[in-house]
Amino acid sequence: MAKLSIVGIGPGNYENMTVKADRALRESDVIVGYTVYVDLVKEQFSGKEFLTTPMTREADRCRMAIEKAREGKNVAMVCSGDSGIYGMAALIYEIRGESAEPAIEVVPGLTAACSGGAVLGAPLTHDFAVISLSDRLTDWNKIEMRLDNAAKADLSMAIYNPKSKGRPDHLKKACDILLRTLPGDRICGVVHNIGREGEKAVTMTLEELRTYDADMFCTVFIGNSMTTVIGGKMVTPRGYRDV
Amino acid sequence: MAKLSIVGIGPGNYENMTVKADRALRESDVIVGYTVYVDLVKEQFSGKEFLTTPMTREADRCRMAIEKAREGKNVAMVCSGDSGIYGMAALIYEIRGESAEPAIEVVPGLTAACSGGAVLGAPLTHDFAVISLSDRLTDWNKIEMRLDNAAKADLSMAIYNPKSKGRPDHLKKACDILLRTLPGDRICGVVHNIGREGEKAVTMTLEELRTYDADMFCTVFIGNSMTTVIGGKMVTPRGYRDV
Repeated sequence: MAKLSIVGIGPGNYENMTVKADRALRESDVIVGYTVYVDLVKEQFSGKEFLTTPMTREADRCRMAIEKAREGKNVAMVCSGDSGIYGMAALIYEIRGESAEPAIEVVPGLTAACSGGAVLGAPLTHDFAVISLSDRLTDWNKIEMRLDNAAKADLSMAIYNPKSKGRPDHLKKACDILLRTLPGDRICGVVHNIGREGEKAVTMTLEELRTYDADMFCTVFIGNSMTTVIGGKMVTPRGYRDV
Repeated sequence: MAKLSIVGIGPGNYENMTVKADRALRESDVIVGYTVYVDLVKEQFSGKEFLTTPMTREADRCRMAIEKAREGKNVAMVCSGDSGIYGMAALIYEIRGESAEPAIEVVPGLTAACSGGAVLGAPLTHDFAVISLSDRLTDWNKIEMRLDNAAKADLSMAIYNPKSKGRPDHLKKACDILLRTLPGDRICGVVHNIGREGEKAVTMTLEELRTYDADMFCTVFIGNSMTTVIGGKMVTPRGYRDV
């Protein structure tokens, strides 16, 4: 029986893929995805049929994957990071609807909160929020409201899609929202190119983050009131030392 | 050069471990951890030295791991889920302090937000918060405040440690906080024993969750205002269908 696996490949390097994701890609006949993510796995899984669609054609991509699986092919749809968190799994379920065909398997992967956090140190040891600054599908007012509430709740944060060509000022605007509640010296961090060439982690204050030159391959971390820097690493204690 | 790897092993089954975590355990001389987590890897990585401490001796465990690495052993400290998110990486950095010895490598793993989400469907496709209901190291008032803010921000939530012997009422109390803001029919889900024997996912309303018999091997998911059930799966759309 053919199935459709929605596979989170993690940040992009083979090492940060799970054993299960590796198997799902190996067992697939067809690998479908956004061009950039398919390119990340093309070499490791050569000999497959590869189908790609550009960035803004998510629903087309999912329909194509479902159709291929209904034709009897084992299809793996690749997502960067996790297959659920800002990934394609929900859209696949939406488009398949109440039909039982094709069978669907969601294969989780390392989201940038995990993989980027490990590069920076341990910024998310306590409760945290994950918020995307992309307003392509979400009202900016809602994003602002979420940032504001997360700051008031003393949650650490992983901020996805901090900047892109069409959103050059989003990170600065987000910092301005956070600075209503958080002090300017709040510890923050940025990880560039997680698990890829040019991987780099930088710690800084929230005030410095406001004008930091991030790009679309960055994940941003905001500390909570306990976050500190130890040996160059961004560390949020949970409180174990005090017990 | 000996090093200390803090390894997130994911939910517990080998398949959901990353290639890098597998390698770190293979290359280690000593595997250190909480008894239950060490038991999860003992069979797959037999022939190593295993050192365990009980649940509430986290700082002892970290000191033991650092000491072993300073003696020249390659040490892998295992954490369930991710090594950073509620894991031991921060405490290792705290205890090592500004010393450069031993070298530390944080190996990320699938946190339950990813691995449990995949079992339920795709509950965290949009912005979300991760909140633990354990008040062992965190004031209950702070946990309540975070739940309240997350609900007001229309964030989906992954709730860790929903219940234990010492905290039989925490999930009910948490639902009561959420019900101040969220409707009783808000879609929720519970995953039992992610990646282990007895894995099971159940969807329900927030009102039903309030009296649900969860245990300490559960992860709870709270939907946002868009979350729905499709073909038995908990699905939070991102909005791709509408573009």
